[in-house]
Amino acid sequence: MARRRLRALMLASVFVLFPVLAQTKNVAEQLGYPADAKLLIIHADDLAVSHSEDRASFAALDGHAVSAASIMVPCPWLTEVAEYAKAHPDADLGLHLTLTSEWKNYRWGPVASKNEVPGLLGPDGNLWLDVPFVTKNASSAEVETEIRAQIERAMKSGIRPTHVDSHMGTLFTPAFFPAYVKVAREYGLPFLAMRAAGAPAAMLALLKDTDVMPGAITMAAGVEAKNWTEYYMGVIHNLKPGLTELIVHLAYDDAEMQAITEEHPAYGSAWRQRDFDVITSPGFRQALKDNSVTLIGWKDIKERGSRH
Amino acid sequence: MARRRLRALMLASVFVLFPVLAQTKNVAEQLGYPADAKLLIIHADDLAVSHSEDRASFAALDGHAVSAASIMVPCPWLTEVAEYAKAHPDADLGLHLTLTSEWKNYRWGPVASKNEVPGLLGPDGNLWLDVPFVTKNASSAEVETEIRAQIERAMKSGIRPTHVDSHMGTLFTPAFFPAYVKVAREYGLPFLAMRAAGAPAAMLALLKDTDVMPGAITMAAGVEAKNWTEYYMGVIHNLKPGLTELIVHLAYDDAEMQAITEEHPAYGSAWRQRDFDVITSPGFRQALKDNSVTLIGWKDIKERGSRH
Repeated sequence: MARRRLRALMLASVFVLFPVLAQTKNVAEQLGYPADAKLLIIHADDLAVSHSEDRASFAALDGHAVSAASIMVPCPWLTEVAEYAKAHPDADLGLHLTLTSEWKNYRWGPVASKNEVPGLLGPDGNLWLDVPFVTKNASSAEVETEIRAQIERAMKSGIRPTHVDSHMGTLFTPAFFPAYVKVAREYGLPFLAMRAAGAPAAMLALLKDTDVMPGAITMAAGVEAKNWTEYYMGVIHNLKPGLTELIVHLAYDDAEMQAITEEHPAYGSAWRQRDFDVITSPGFRQALKDNSVTLIGWKDIKERGSRH
Repeated sequence: MARRRLRALMLASVFVLFPVLAQTKNVAEQLGYPADAKLLIIHADDLAVSHSEDRASFAALDGHAVSAASIMVPCPWLTEVAEYAKAHPDADLGLHLTLTSEWKNYRWGPVASKNEVPGLLGPDGNLWLDVPFVTKNASSAEVETEIRAQIERAMKSGIRPTHVDSHMGTLFTPAFFPAYVKVAREYGLPFLAMRAAGAPAAMLALLKDTDVMPGAITMAAGVEAKNWTEYYMGVIHNLKPGLTELIVHLAYDDAEMQAITEEHPAYGSAWRQRDFDVITSPGFRQALKDNSVTLIGWKDIKERGSRH
């Protein structure tokens, strides 16, 4: 529990709690919409982590219950996702750059050669179990090597990524954020981040006015099971004009996913099934309509970027 | 199909079709049994490949339906098996040394650092899809590096292996057999092989009189689904005095296993469920009794080895 709570706190503290810095144009206007448009990316994280996650996420992508998703390249099921990507060239798929291997029963290593990234390896030769081990042991150069290797492997497997973001937020830490931004720019990929007023100046200084950033990022961290629907409905009802990213983690509550997430209710198997059930429900879809929400994807942001 | 058929043929040609060279003492006598004892190892391959495989194999180990099993160290579920091994110190678990990653949707890389074993890597940076790619591209030195790394990782994870054998038979090829025997001897581990009369003299020359080898190795390769029970009953009814290893591949026919083995009926999900169903059936257990079969494990062979 502790490490996931930490993750939620870290994301919350860096990205959610602080007011967003004002810009001359709001994000909706940057994307060619009226200033009061409520734009939403519903984003499925963690593709390739398991077959259960892939099946649920593909179903949500196919049914347009999510508008984008991102892929964990070092994970065992990458090929399954690459096949889906090739068969669905319109699917909005980015890379969920991954520097941790956080489950007990089921683990993965880096894409780069292990002796090029020794600081990324836990005692069993796989990636570390949690973010603080990475920030303590890995150098920025090792992180850069590994995220480049992940992007290269994804592209070699036939994936044409629309964006990058960061699994468990490891790349949103001050030490690694410069490598993240640098590599994303080199590959011409939009990257998830926020202009959070409380963020270190050195991090904010890396962002350009033309970078499209959500004004809010939210997910069901710390929400009680009985309040799941209420939480998601609240997100939709309270959307602000501009761009919000709603992060979901979709899987079926089956034997595979239960074993992967054993002893970890937060982000666990039932947790992900709840996410799937709510966001694919008619009630949720209706709430999007009733609240005049415009779903967009990272593809829209990438295409806009390529016009500037 | 082709590559699995190849595997079956290779195993058959190297190990099964040739008459076994006569020794002064038969294997039963080597192990302290009467010369006419029918000793059988029922051996579950492929532990750690998936949660489905692990659950079915643990159930068979717990119920003594198999007498030994071996673990694929580079696979994602190694930790799950290591936890089982630590909780069941009497379980007879060896290492299924693995130099291929043979499924399309679901893949794994080497345990050694990739740049130490470039010849073991297919185009996606994981292990090759099949044995001929390994024999064509990898050096004996790379193979030795990787199998040492697998043994070291297993031991570091808390597994105390009773033996080694070879996934898909890669290490039973003339080029790699010397590295296999050398490393097994260094770690004091009995290894699966056969004194097959048709085998190259250079391979046979590596074997010592004190090495305990089965006189026959068999598994349900090429058997039609409807003949599954008949095949296994036939193996038991026709057991010869001495030592036989019956190799089984146990898994539940569920979503995870179906996705891993997609488009591959041989060694597929239903195939493994059939193996599980037959060898855990009362009829099979009764046949073992009726035919005076003595189940032994690799632990018995290892312990005997340590007395010589």
